[in-house]
Amino acid sequence: MPDFSIGVDLGGTNLRIAAVTGEGQMLEKVTFGSKGAPGRDQVIDQMCDAILHLSSKYKATGKFLGAGIGIPGIVDLQTGMLRKSANLPGWEEYPVRAEIERRLGARVVLENDANVAALGEQWLGAARGVSNMAVVTLGTGIGGGIVLGGKIWHGMNGMAGEFGHVTIEPEGPPCGCGSHGCAEQYASASAIVRMAREAIASGEAPSLAKAASSDAEFGAQSIYNLAIQGDEHARRIFRTFGRYLGIMLAGAINVLNLEMFVIGGGVSSAWDVYAPTMFEELRERSIVYAATAPIDPLRSGSLEKGKEEGVSARTESRNERKTIITRALLGSDAGLYGAARMAGMAE
Amino acid sequence: MPDFSIGVDLGGTNLRIAAVTGEGQMLEKVTFGSKGAPGRDQVIDQMCDAILHLSSKYKATGKFLGAGIGIPGIVDLQTGMLRKSANLPGWEEYPVRAEIERRLGARVVLENDANVAALGEQWLGAARGVSNMAVVTLGTGIGGGIVLGGKIWHGMNGMAGEFGHVTIEPEGPPCGCGSHGCAEQYASASAIVRMAREAIASGEAPSLAKAASSDAEFGAQSIYNLAIQGDEHARRIFRTFGRYLGIMLAGAINVLNLEMFVIGGGVSSAWDVYAPTMFEELRERSIVYAATAPIDPLRSGSLEKGKEEGVSARTESRNERKTIITRALLGSDAGLYGAARMAGMAE
Repeated sequence: MPDFSIGVDLGGTNLRIAAVTGEGQMLEKVTFGSKGAPGRDQVIDQMCDAILHLSSKYKATGKFLGAGIGIPGIVDLQTGMLRKSANLPGWEEYPVRAEIERRLGARVVLENDANVAALGEQWLGAARGVSNMAVVTLGTGIGGGIVLGGKIWHGMNGMAGEFGHVTIEPEGPPCGCGSHGCAEQYASASAIVRMAREAIASGEAPSLAKAASSDAEFGAQSIYNLAIQGDEHARRIFRTFGRYLGIMLAGAINVLNLEMFVIGGGVSSAWDVYAPTMFEELRERSIVYAATAPIDPLRSGSLEKGKEEGVSARTESRNERKTIITRALLGSDAGLYGAARMAGMAE
Repeated sequence: MPDFSIGVDLGGTNLRIAAVTGEGQMLEKVTFGSKGAPGRDQVIDQMCDAILHLSSKYKATGKFLGAGIGIPGIVDLQTGMLRKSANLPGWEEYPVRAEIERRLGARVVLENDANVAALGEQWLGAARGVSNMAVVTLGTGIGGGIVLGGKIWHGMNGMAGEFGHVTIEPEGPPCGCGSHGCAEQYASASAIVRMAREAIASGEAPSLAKAASSDAEFGAQSIYNLAIQGDEHARRIFRTFGRYLGIMLAGAINVLNLEMFVIGGGVSSAWDVYAPTMFEELRERSIVYAATAPIDPLRSGSLEKGKEEGVSARTESRNERKTIITRALLGSDAGLYGAARMAGMAE
């Protein structure tokens, strides 16, 4: 009878709740839409009802270890309150954790959503078995989470992993954070749309202009569709995207020397059109990546060991292990698994 | 009777060896010049003779815990060999640690010199009592070391902390590492000289041109001297230096959210002329720094506690702790202390 915990993903669009065993098996998942933009108290009601329902339903399966909640914002780990959250009006200055713990009568852990996604991919996804890794999520903006020694690296204030606001181009476009030329201004869904609008305004991208005027939902997805159909203007945008993502990752690799960076989030699926320039920049700009990336099978001994491809190509010697940049595997469930894991670990 | 260990700083210009107690008291320091550019075997002879001499001399004081050696290069922690060292020809592919352990009959730890400097500043210098910090050393190039939880963060291959090769200006000057626009190309002694030569070549810096032609040893120090005398061209170079150092630090703070960054190395002493632009960039470009930097004594409660200034102004709450950027305190002894500490800790 495996013990289980409950993971919650409190996203901008959905509220999702799942019961997950200590071995990583999902028992049941519940999804609430955000029709009518429910307020804070209504969301907490839904969440607590669902957690109580699931914890009671699977009580026979094993011990309920608690609930972990991934939240888009900066969490104060000591007080269990939100310090800052752009997408959750009314949640700041409110004792979120205390209130939920009171209703559940169980231990609750709050955590930033990018951090739980990192823990999820490290536990059951692309970085399974990799102790030191980071996730970079490419969505409307860029999120990030770092796992060191199998645990979330919070930094001093729970703010570590802000990869999106690393300066890539000092005189680049202004960013909502108050700076200029942040990675988020080049390698996010909103950056793709901005670059397309700029290309249209320049008059040099008629195909994009045509798509924008005929498609009421013109956005990153439409531009990706054009790119995979071979449209040169759309392809150029994703090459720029990959170039700047690569510059950002090169810096992070030089500083952290992690075993793996996992690229997740909605836009990460455009991998085929941005990855080539991303890897070009990594090879040029990261001495750490360059020193660890290319495994020469004749020297590394991996041929003899018959483990040539992918992650398993890493050999036993520390020196010859490569820095792996790869796609996330768990999609939007990464946060659910990570939140459940967090609740289970803290036990 | 305090136990002691021996720290070795194997620099490009000097070989220095010190006996240091477990409480951080230096018992004795020996310095060998590099006249005649001694070869590998001669350096190892000098080092082992001095270590044996010191360990026997202070045997009555306490237990000899071993020797730590800081080396300019990438150390393979498993084999105790140098993977790469620009300044130590003949040392790669040689069993350095095994040979020294054989001669001493004692345990020896090899470590990268920037990493031991970080550990030294964390143990006894500017970051005393700070568990999570980094040192950035500004010399001919830029070195770096990261300490997490009081221990050196090596990363996967012992290559973490390469702050100098983070891209700051994608189309900037070429770097020896193969990339372009690395931090090292803007915030190092060699960058200062390059920027001065560029200003001279442009014909717009007559004062620098005059100094360069009259000073046979024209270098970063001469340009600093001009700057503090008020020369506008020299000051501009240090403003650029500070700006790019600030951009690099802003990115590192956003990613790591460390409590403290300590700026060391020979060029760090020009603090008064580069720090203003460095702090400007930090405030603009790091949301983490901006969120944690300005302590409002009326809100933080530090006034009531009577701990207003400097490091001690950090309050008990995680939220209100500030990210501190400060100068190194131990100078060139940081590496000696850190190397001794490492040997003492591993016991």
